[in-house]
Amino acid sequence: MRVELYYWPTIQGRGEFVRLLLEEAGADYVDVARAKGGMAAMMRFLGGKEPGALPFAAPFVKVGDAVVSQTANILDFLAPRLGLVPDHETLRAEASQIGLTIADFVGEIHDTHHPIAGSLYYEEQKKEAKRRAPVFLKERMPKYLGWLEDVLARNAASAGRWLVGGDLTYVDLSAFQVVEGLRYAFPNALARLERKIPRLVTLHDRVAERPRIAAYLTSKRRRPFNQEGIFRRYPELDAPAPRRPSRGTRGRRARR
Amino acid sequence: MRVELYYWPTIQGRGEFVRLLLEEAGADYVDVARAKGGMAAMMRFLGGKEPGALPFAAPFVKVGDAVVSQTANILDFLAPRLGLVPDHETLRAEASQIGLTIADFVGEIHDTHHPIAGSLYYEEQKKEAKRRAPVFLKERMPKYLGWLEDVLARNAASAGRWLVGGDLTYVDLSAFQVVEGLRYAFPNALARLERKIPRLVTLHDRVAERPRIAAYLTSKRRRPFNQEGIFRRYPELDAPAPRRPSRGTRGRRARR
Repeated sequence: MRVELYYWPTIQGRGEFVRLLLEEAGADYVDVARAKGGMAAMMRFLGGKEPGALPFAAPFVKVGDAVVSQTANILDFLAPRLGLVPDHETLRAEASQIGLTIADFVGEIHDTHHPIAGSLYYEEQKKEAKRRAPVFLKERMPKYLGWLEDVLARNAASAGRWLVGGDLTYVDLSAFQVVEGLRYAFPNALARLERKIPRLVTLHDRVAERPRIAAYLTSKRRRPFNQEGIFRRYPELDAPAPRRPSRGTRGRRARR
Repeated sequence: MRVELYYWPTIQGRGEFVRLLLEEAGADYVDVARAKGGMAAMMRFLGGKEPGALPFAAPFVKVGDAVVSQTANILDFLAPRLGLVPDHETLRAEASQIGLTIADFVGEIHDTHHPIAGSLYYEEQKKEAKRRAPVFLKERMPKYLGWLEDVLARNAASAGRWLVGGDLTYVDLSAFQVVEGLRYAFPNALARLERKIPRLVTLHDRVAERPRIAAYLTSKRRRPFNQEGIFRRYPELDAPAPRRPSRGTRGRRARR
């Protein structure tokens, strides 16, 4: 099975969730829009000039004659073919609900810096972002991360190692990516939370160490995070840096 | 197959997309939280006190031992069992991508009145809503509705009558609900657009006339739209009312 992935070439974005699945599976795939003429090919699909289901937006994949879009749907479509979700339909539905909840989380992460409109620059909605981001960091981020932690804790089939069933699935890869992205975007806020989500942090590390993922992360195929994607580092939107004791204080403590 | 639906009892909300599928199918279902003790039962699931997959939020359904959440995932899980999506997996993936795009659309509709936080009252974010809603009405609403119109136009299998394949599927019911909701929330903005989406308007009417849907819409099970749900009518967020010629002008025109 050969997979053509179509996504904006210069960012990780939503396409990265698909790339991680393809990389972990060692799939035969091509990242079309990063090759010559690929952007024009992608725009033909988005413009309705190609047969198959019409994508509303990138990412989408082409597998044989099937054109499949919407990140969570792409993952749900590819994962059974690549052995990255159990065949059992209840477990597959459980993976899908986790994938969709991560997609909602990613949408809210994006909207911290774009609360008014995707078509406006950050600078044009910075004032509103500075109202939205703190509520996100205080209420929503802990709720989503805590929920993932709870899902791990409840999953007896893997003793809390993986989110669904007894082994790694595509949603573990997606959870890894969210932790990576939040460490980039909100390092201070996440640092305060990490001790409350030990299973999720361990899951992140376990994914990062998988041979194919480790190789991918150090390859040129992995684009670095940047200020065009979903995860962006605007220090004014993050929580304050943790207070560090002054040298004098540390000195006194060391003497005790 | 008996379906237990769990959703907030006083609003249509996201649960309505599931209700429409269950009603069209004539399914054996119970709307748990609308019955005595049902809210407490729902909260036990959300609080992690019941077995099965942990829902992040309502709606969710219980079918046998399976607990399934996330609206688009619930629909994708129930529809094959109720004959409301083709068995063919490419068509099922196509329905799913339409369902997910409608879910994104619904999320953006919600955020027109809650651009900062779901936990704040509308009045606390009215200023920001008055920035977000016009961009939504100008850019996003026409894009989503135009995409649904294009999907209909491309669907040769039903000669543009239904979104996927040759017959009605659950996504046609969801598209109906979005048109209903937008007519409630943004009557002026939608009135200007309707002539550009004739296939979608006709689809809406065709769904409304289906005997089980027609019976449901006039039943007490169908709650009216209200100011607690996703679709809310805040006149200050809608486009201006269409200008009507004055009596004098109409008189002059009539005389020509």
